[in-house]
Amino acid sequence: MQQTIVPDVYPSRVHDRPSIEARKDPVVYRSNGLAADGPLTADQLAQYERDGFLMLENLFTQTEVEQMRAEMARVLEENEGSHSQAVIREPESEEVRSVFAIHETDTAFNRISRDSRLLDRARQLLDSEVYVHQSRINFKPGFEGKEFYWHSDFETWHVEDGMPRMRAVSFSILLDDNLPFNGSLMLVPGSHKHFISCVGKTPEDHYKQSLRRQEVGVPDRGSLTWLVDRYGLQMPSAKAGSVLMFECNTMHGSNSNITPLPRRNVFVVYNSVENALQPPYSGGKPRPGFVAARKPELVVR
Amino acid sequence: MQQTIVPDVYPSRVHDRPSIEARKDPVVYRSNGLAADGPLTADQLAQYERDGFLMLENLFTQTEVEQMRAEMARVLEENEGSHSQAVIREPESEEVRSVFAIHETDTAFNRISRDSRLLDRARQLLDSEVYVHQSRINFKPGFEGKEFYWHSDFETWHVEDGMPRMRAVSFSILLDDNLPFNGSLMLVPGSHKHFISCVGKTPEDHYKQSLRRQEVGVPDRGSLTWLVDRYGLQMPSAKAGSVLMFECNTMHGSNSNITPLPRRNVFVVYNSVENALQPPYSGGKPRPGFVAARKPELVVR
Repeated sequence: MQQTIVPDVYPSRVHDRPSIEARKDPVVYRSNGLAADGPLTADQLAQYERDGFLMLENLFTQTEVEQMRAEMARVLEENEGSHSQAVIREPESEEVRSVFAIHETDTAFNRISRDSRLLDRARQLLDSEVYVHQSRINFKPGFEGKEFYWHSDFETWHVEDGMPRMRAVSFSILLDDNLPFNGSLMLVPGSHKHFISCVGKTPEDHYKQSLRRQEVGVPDRGSLTWLVDRYGLQMPSAKAGSVLMFECNTMHGSNSNITPLPRRNVFVVYNSVENALQPPYSGGKPRPGFVAARKPELVVR
Repeated sequence: MQQTIVPDVYPSRVHDRPSIEARKDPVVYRSNGLAADGPLTADQLAQYERDGFLMLENLFTQTEVEQMRAEMARVLEENEGSHSQAVIREPESEEVRSVFAIHETDTAFNRISRDSRLLDRARQLLDSEVYVHQSRINFKPGFEGKEFYWHSDFETWHVEDGMPRMRAVSFSILLDDNLPFNGSLMLVPGSHKHFISCVGKTPEDHYKQSLRRQEVGVPDRGSLTWLVDRYGLQMPSAKAGSVLMFECNTMHGSNSNITPLPRRNVFVVYNSVENALQPPYSGGKPRPGFVAARKPELVVR
């Protein structure tokens, strides 16, 4: 059964020239009244609304961090020779960089994806029940951690997965200290208020290549320069166990990491149940469920 | 005429296993008495001695920075189609990244290499007259600035150029603000007190490849981890016009740069006239003069 089509208010990869469009959605949703009584304070909501991200210091304990690190090592080892599409390798080597859908395949990470420290904040911001749109563990190793170029997650989720509106939030649980040295995530504060419409046509099965290195749906240099001139850059440093929460349309990327210090994280994206995926706006076939859940289940706490 | 051979007190690329050896030379030379009356204060000397580097804030004016930027753009443009070996290109594209020996080929940069703000500090630290061992302009562009892996300059200068002892100092004049975001130089403070003896044999004409991407004479991961565990990392931020001064054996490297902000610098290395180059300790033929001056002229002020 085809779902109702929500009109494409964020067209991308359809024009010959890039453009910078205004955001058409709230950043913090408020009409159902959940924003008022969640764990995030009014100050934190205002900061998230302004910057498009918020670092929550020491949300998980060092013991929990140790447990997640051990579980991650186990999953990486288990998947070393795997041919699963959910296992993503470095573009220039065969090292495992990410494993997707870990909330479905791993008991410990399933529990994390239902942890109220994440879930209550997601419900509060999105002002509705939520479900896990995507999850993964990311391993940015020391000495040879590769850069990841600028992108808005929403641009891809909209065009390739059919996410209609900007009403999703990502949580990155830091399993290592994020320092100025080890290729930490950089964000453009305020960039979530603009939609960068990209050029280029989406190839069939684009995800097979783009999860390793993206070349289509990449923001142009002119728009990136405009954003950085206007808003500057931030690269939040924080201890392992802290959680970086960022809006689905915030522009972000990271430099390489030649230091001996790895940078691992657990990544969980929540989407509002009122923002269910449509057929992809590219017109192509949807990406597989491990990268974008198409049969959302209400997250049970 | 063969020069007198100074014994090899820092053997590298000769053993099967890497090792960490003690430095056998002073960091600040004092026996000729020049250290006492130079422009660097006692505090600055102590900091340089301890860390192996020192950032001199705003040593050049904004007008001088503008002039050097313009001159650099002119030199890069002039060398775009050049087949000169002194023009170094990115490993994965043909973009010009560095031009060597600019103190010999360019009037403006020749003047910079004789500027007393650099020269007086070099003489003070090395406690003798000095000459330019190497000079270059480096262009790390925005969006696609490549990383440069960890290395001690001295290891290469010793093995491939025959620099006998650690008695040289590098000056990097910043032509752009160095920020935590744009692939700024990282250094291991204190690393200059140790010599990392590397494994691997030096290939013939190694410089043709190594100036683009080095694979021999690279410190091993165990030694790098030991250094960073012991000393930590630093990545000095500073405004354009500032000068980073660092000792020839200080371990340094840089991550990539995906930001729109380029990072350009002018690089001048002074060696003591009492530390003249010997035949290379690798036993191979010397590298060309554009990368290591073999007929030192006393720098005239």
